Amino acid sequence: MNTATLAPELKPPYFAVIFSSVRNGEDESGYAVMAARMNVLAECQPGFLGMESVRREDGLGVTVSYWESEDAIRAWKKNAEHLVAQEQGCSDWYATYRIRICRVEREYGFEHADSPAGAAAPAY
Amino acid sequence: MNTATLAPELKPPYFAVIFSSVRNGEDESGYAVMAARMNVLAECQPGFLGMESVRREDGLGVTVSYWESEDAIRAWKKNAEHLVAQEQGCSDWYATYRIRICRVEREYGFEHADSPAGAAAPAY
Repeated sequence: MNTATLAPELKPPYFAVIFSSVRNGEDESGYAVMAARMNVLAECQPGFLGMESVRREDGLGVTVSYWESEDAIRAWKKNAEHLVAQEQGCSDWYATYRIRICRVEREYGFEHADSPAGAAAPAY
Repeated sequence: MNTATLAPELKPPYFAVIFSSVRNGEDESGYAVMAARMNVLAECQPGFLGMESVRREDGLGVTVSYWESEDAIRAWKKNAEHLVAQEQGCSDWYATYRIRICRVEREYGFEHADSPAGAAAPAY
């Protein structure tokens, strides 16, 4: 068993930003510092609900952040420090990225019976 | 520069399934075979538009698949071979997972000017 965790169970409808990217392989340390800072900053934004972020060794990464409203997403995009990171992302760190703004309609989950929460997997 | 690629540019509205999971660390080879098979099978499903899938060494993984309609998502969930994989996922491979079904409202992307497609990053 390992310690990685998912974003919490949430109550639809709410919103998700799927940020899919390919790193250019340069400035790993500068990128890591900024990515960590952006995670902390996002968590402090009004309307932030959770985040899941994974990057593969070949540079492909998917970060999904969850938000109460589209207004909360717009406010985060316009955050001054985040704007600097976005600019530097384009100039220094990403070969390509794609951002998708979604309305989460429904969700369900499973937790193995060995874990305290037991199992739960409703139908689509 | 590396060779990892993203799902193609798509035209909203369409649908996304965000599958966030934590592996239990067991049966890596059996899991890898099934995961590869499910990727191929999903790509052959009617209404499949694309997929991005990343897993970290600590077991946290995010797979996002894109679909033309909610009916296409339901049909994929009910695919006979996929049902077997879902069952085995719960019994043998996952500590926990969460599935979120979303409607993609809008999207935009960036491609570094060094790449053939040039840059494009519209506002939210």
